[in-house]
Amino acid sequence: MAESPETPKPASKAVYYADYLKLDYLLEAQHPLSKLSDGAPAHDEMLFIIIHQAYELWFKQVLHELDSVMTLFSKPTVSEDQMGMAVARLERIIEIQRLMLMQMQVLQTMQPLDFLDFRDQLYPASGFQSFQFRILENRLGLKPEQRVPYHQGRYDASLDDRHRQILQKAENEPSLLELVEKWLERTPFLTFGSFDFWDSYRQAVETLFDGDAERISSNPLLGAEDIQSHLDRLAATRSTFATLFSEEQYQELQAQGGRRLSYKATKAALLILLYRERPILHLPYRLINALSTVDELLTTWRYRHALNVQRMIGVKVGTGGSMGYEYLLHTMAKHRIFGDFNQLSTFLIPRSALPELPDEVERQLGFYYQGEPT
Amino acid sequence: MAESPETPKPASKAVYYADYLKLDYLLEAQHPLSKLSDGAPAHDEMLFIIIHQAYELWFKQVLHELDSVMTLFSKPTVSEDQMGMAVARLERIIEIQRLMLMQMQVLQTMQPLDFLDFRDQLYPASGFQSFQFRILENRLGLKPEQRVPYHQGRYDASLDDRHRQILQKAENEPSLLELVEKWLERTPFLTFGSFDFWDSYRQAVETLFDGDAERISSNPLLGAEDIQSHLDRLAATRSTFATLFSEEQYQELQAQGGRRLSYKATKAALLILLYRERPILHLPYRLINALSTVDELLTTWRYRHALNVQRMIGVKVGTGGSMGYEYLLHTMAKHRIFGDFNQLSTFLIPRSALPELPDEVERQLGFYYQGEPT
Amino acid sequence: MAESPETPKPASKAVYYADYLKLDYLLEAQHPLSKLSDGAPAHDEMLFIIIHQAYELWFKQVLHELDSVMTLFSKPTVSEDQMGMAVARLERIIEIQRLMLMQMQVLQTMQPLDFLDFRDQLYPASGFQSFQFRILENRLGLKPEQRVPYHQGRYDASLDDRHRQILQKAENEPSLLELVEKWLERTPFLTFGSFDFWDSYRQAVETLFDGDAERISSNPLLGAEDIQSHLDRLAATRSTFATLFSEEQYQELQAQGGRRLSYKATKAALLILLYRERPILHLPYRLINALSTVDELLTTWRYRHALNVQRMIGVKVGTGGSMGYEYLLHTMAKHRIFGDFNQLSTFLIPRSALPELPDEVERQLGFYYQGEPT
Amino acid sequence: MAESPETPKPASKAVYYADYLKLDYLLEAQHPLSKLSDGAPAHDEMLFIIIHQAYELWFKQVLHELDSVMTLFSKPTVSEDQMGMAVARLERIIEIQRLMLMQMQVLQTMQPLDFLDFRDQLYPASGFQSFQFRILENRLGLKPEQRVPYHQGRYDASLDDRHRQILQKAENEPSLLELVEKWLERTPFLTFGSFDFWDSYRQAVETLFDGDAERISSNPLLGAEDIQSHLDRLAATRSTFATLFSEEQYQELQAQGGRRLSYKATKAALLILLYRERPILHLPYRLINALSTVDELLTTWRYRHALNVQRMIGVKVGTGGSMGYEYLLHTMAKHRIFGDFNQLSTFLIPRSALPELPDEVERQLGFYYQGEPT
Repeated sequence: MAESPETPKPASKAVYYADYLKLDYLLEAQHPLSKLSDGAPAHDEMLFIIIHQAYELWFKQVLHELDSVMTLFSKPTVSEDQMGMAVARLERIIEIQRLMLMQMQVLQTMQPLDFLDFRDQLYPASGFQSFQFRILENRLGLKPEQRVPYHQGRYDASLDDRHRQILQKAENEPSLLELVEKWLERTPFLTFGSFDFWDSYRQAVETLFDGDAERISSNPLLGAEDIQSHLDRLAATRSTFATLFSEEQYQELQAQGGRRLSYKATKAALLILLYRERPILHLPYRLINALSTVDELLTTWRYRHALNVQRMIGVKVGTGGSMGYEYLLHTMAKHRIFGDFNQLSTFLIPRSALPELPDEVERQLGFYYQGEPT
Repeated sequence: MAESPETPKPASKAVYYADYLKLDYLLEAQHPLSKLSDGAPAHDEMLFIIIHQAYELWFKQVLHELDSVMTLFSKPTVSEDQMGMAVARLERIIEIQRLMLMQMQVLQTMQPLDFLDFRDQLYPASGFQSFQFRILENRLGLKPEQRVPYHQGRYDASLDDRHRQILQKAENEPSLLELVEKWLERTPFLTFGSFDFWDSYRQAVETLFDGDAERISSNPLLGAEDIQSHLDRLAATRSTFATLFSEEQYQELQAQGGRRLSYKATKAALLILLYRERPILHLPYRLINALSTVDELLTTWRYRHALNVQRMIGVKVGTGGSMGYEYLLHTMAKHRIFGDFNQLSTFLIPRSALPELPDEVERQLGFYYQGEPT
Repeated sequence: MAESPETPKPASKAVYYADYLKLDYLLEAQHPLSKLSDGAPAHDEMLFIIIHQAYELWFKQVLHELDSVMTLFSKPTVSEDQMGMAVARLERIIEIQRLMLMQMQVLQTMQPLDFLDFRDQLYPASGFQSFQFRILENRLGLKPEQRVPYHQGRYDASLDDRHRQILQKAENEPSLLELVEKWLERTPFLTFGSFDFWDSYRQAVETLFDGDAERISSNPLLGAEDIQSHLDRLAATRSTFATLFSEEQYQELQAQGGRRLSYKATKAALLILLYRERPILHLPYRLINALSTVDELLTTWRYRHALNVQRMIGVKVGTGGSMGYEYLLHTMAKHRIFGDFNQLSTFLIPRSALPELPDEVERQLGFYYQGEPT
Repeated sequence: MAESPETPKPASKAVYYADYLKLDYLLEAQHPLSKLSDGAPAHDEMLFIIIHQAYELWFKQVLHELDSVMTLFSKPTVSEDQMGMAVARLERIIEIQRLMLMQMQVLQTMQPLDFLDFRDQLYPASGFQSFQFRILENRLGLKPEQRVPYHQGRYDASLDDRHRQILQKAENEPSLLELVEKWLERTPFLTFGSFDFWDSYRQAVETLFDGDAERISSNPLLGAEDIQSHLDRLAATRSTFATLFSEEQYQELQAQGGRRLSYKATKAALLILLYRERPILHLPYRLINALSTVDELLTTWRYRHALNVQRMIGVKVGTGGSMGYEYLLHTMAKHRIFGDFNQLSTFLIPRSALPELPDEVERQLGFYYQGEPT
């Protein structure tokens, strides 16, 4: 039974702000290691500690949201009543990521010379050892074999056993990428009644290209050379689409690491993007979009982090002996997780070129309640 | 027929970036009025002009989005296929408002002493004369009679005829608030089959309060005085709810300016907030939430603006003879448009206290396609 | 002796990231109180806890910076070598405040209905009990008697003894406002050799007004009525300045709470603002500007907080029984600390109207090294 | 003579907000090219136009600030009274850059499918043709030969003659990088009286390394192998420093493009960073820091831009036939302008390891007024 705010509580149960938030622990958890010549710690080490603690708190929150979304997507069927919640939680992660980017601006108020006052004391600790960040990467779907090798060692080599075990567990569980892939593959609308999405999309693309070829060849304003150059460009575009239309070519690309989602999941994602206005596809579309943004902000954060490392220590090795700036730049490009969704932009075609959906399909994609009969 | 990027164009139609954006006009539209003793304009007047021009560009964009949403809501029925679009456009307005808030930080790099170098030349021009901002307020739903009087005159007294006419037109057309109110009133789900929302909600509230009263009176840990104090508090809460349950009391409150939405629209909004997970109510819930945020950011912007006026000119009158800081503070509190949605938080009850919906109602609030029969 | 990064350390001293940041404490300090019907805590309570913990970490950092600035300003003379550091630390506080404002956007992803799932369990805990925030206010210079009374009680009534004692200590120690006031009063440049700032400024103001009166009266384009109206306006401005030129009127204003700085400190602040380009006055000017911005962002934060309270709980009382929105709006206006610096904008005059400084004074305000003799 | 706000103006000179800001031009400068099947332009093209126009307005403002700083640094001596202003203007550029980054979030509300509705009409226009952005790069100091080649052509190949000429002029004029280099080279404090900075810094570095070698070799906790590994690492660091201490090695590095500043300018920058607290070096230090941040934000902006291009068009070529994402990623790494200042972090040593300055030098770096004799 729900309790209302009026429900009286015995005084002994009165909640005190500082106790509720465990401030006695939280505000005593900053232990600078530096000692300057006057015996006091370097002033800026406090900022260094607190900014990293704030990051770790936010990582915990991000994992909390992520886990709840993953639990939802682990079920055989994702309840439609919970899609809005899943999207809202991913959107919350996005807001937190934006905040974490802004947090870099606070870190930038620390000058290299001030960092020098205590950075040697921290050796070999390094942000590289943030196990929550590694769990986050694993949960999202970054595979050990996709990681940029780090001093020829595994990414978790410098972590202690306890944390390494947590990470390996996360490696072995289905990632969000995999759960979303399965969910996409289950989409019932790829072939639905008289409607075959892939066929219909493919025909629309062909019609589009044939029209282009026709317009190019018959254009009185173009000389023979220009016509050829345009036709060559068109041919190039056709072969890009061929990597999508041929399952074989797709799988080759996938084998080379150029795609991560299964062929069927890719089709479903394209369906959702192209028909996002239909009620039943709208939240799935928002979900795909949110995953794409999470990935983009993660890589942006890596970049800001790399710039910051460079600004703080120049070309020296990082505090944990990391290769610093160069290493981070590499991870930025290679550690994309939901990059497939971005690639799909390549294959979008104008809505006006899409064939209309059969009425029955339209109805099935809508709400049960479709207004008063008129 | 859609054109693909491969469609060749005659060279004469090649689009040039600077032409497309009309940069010749745009970048020549800064005409400082100041002349310092050395004949040059005051350096910071350029910032002053450009920052206001950027605001006006964004106001145009906000109006563009707003108009498209209003067009949609002007129709007798809002198509479910377009709700996602309506919400996305309001959410875009929110991103623009956040940007406009950030823009204040750029303005804050201008110091009062630098503003003094040219502010007298601007007299009596003033941001008060931004007709796009006034149109925005009118379109959203701020009524002339709700505006804080300004020097005993109308808010558009200092505008020229052309702009005043545009504003008066906007005053006379249905505002977004009114369109949304009508849309809410049309909600078919307030009484639906065997389900009567208002009845069911009201009973849930009563049950909640009765439980509270029972728990208070029978609490062995409380003395007579404490029990009375808790019961008084409960009584106060009950009378707050009475302003909602009695249509008469609601209308009194409305007549005093305490509410802007009709009684029926308020009920519908509450239904949407309480049952937001149901597919057909999810985008309506996002819409209400977005309108609430637009309003909140508008008032935050007013506040940052007021602070800025105070910082730049102290207690002097504004450049347009406006009363400056004090006036702006007043508008902040009085010029809320979608405040009713915030008030509704007062009347939310825990989901666990809500009666379950009949199966038939649940189905009607869901999608037509409800999965494979199992 | 400084240690270089190459200095080897015994393995036992190797620093581990998670230990350094006390992550065992930090990441175990979230204890939700809610239990939903399924036995799990309400999902959003984690966000509620973490966001408040992040705020408290940042408050600690702000206090760390503030304390270091106050220590500096407690000395009989503030070393010129440390002014840059003092300014940089205040500017860091500003970056943190901006971040804390952004953090509101994360909180806004929590919906009132989700808050309802656990808010009653928190009673009577409330952000009102954040003792670090109260210490911050006290250190900056908010006096108990200036605080908006809260349920007729003191602001620290709901805190426990330990925290109340810390706060009372902070009340009794000199605040930053007082330390800055003393520092301003010590400025040697108000009367310096042949230069008397106050005299010279006052004459410049008089000359400016006399010129205005002359131009008004002799303006052939103005009718008698217009001339009178302009002269009345000028007279009003003159009486505003009279509150500055008459020490008696100034002290009256101060007695009524209209000013917080001493007369002498106000003069010094005005000197600094008007002659900010001179090397020795530049960092003092940046300091005043930074204090002004800190105050402005503090009040903006109060406002966003008030809006948020309103959005979350409507017109109900806050979790700590606070009067919520209305109370917070009041504090916003009354709890300004460095408002005097904003008021000074009223008394700035164009640089061109300031008399030139005697050469000797110019030199004294410059660097010792003034370039090669030419 | 300064005019006060009371100075009456003839009515004909009354300034009107819309005229002052040229709103008739500004708000009529959006001409969408798209026509959907219903004859209306694609809704999102307005956003596309306005967001680019807002960028161009801000570019103009950035150039306005930059030009004023460059004018100042073009003089044979930079007046100490104007250093504060120069720094403030660079800091304003930084605020604008932060705003431009935020603006990306507004652009992200546009979906690839919506962009598709009008992107083909824009061909071959492209942000690549923003001549203001190219001027900005040129003015800061990006040389044509340092630019990543673009389709084997010059970066300005697609611009029209008028814009190309403006750009080539900007190429030929001294850049901010060059002006700052000259200014650094003029620093009188490298050898000053009995103080030789380079000598003193070099000795401090040697002492530091010798101490390290001593501590490594005599460490009883280390085995022979560990000792060797530490000594190897130390030797590597010594050779990094050798590229700084040997003018010849420095110039080699410079010839390979690894350094852009002259040897002397680099020394001066290091002096400023190491002794930034001294009054006469404080604003120079802030200037270096600001230039470094401008460069960092420019490269961050490139990155966000690249991500956005990828999100909008996948692997297709950009609207102007640009190579899109890959090209932009390359420019990000290669188009750094003030990277030398970041590299200097490599050569910072703890303040405690720096020799004390002779009293006379200390005095020369301070203010003329050094307090009352005591």
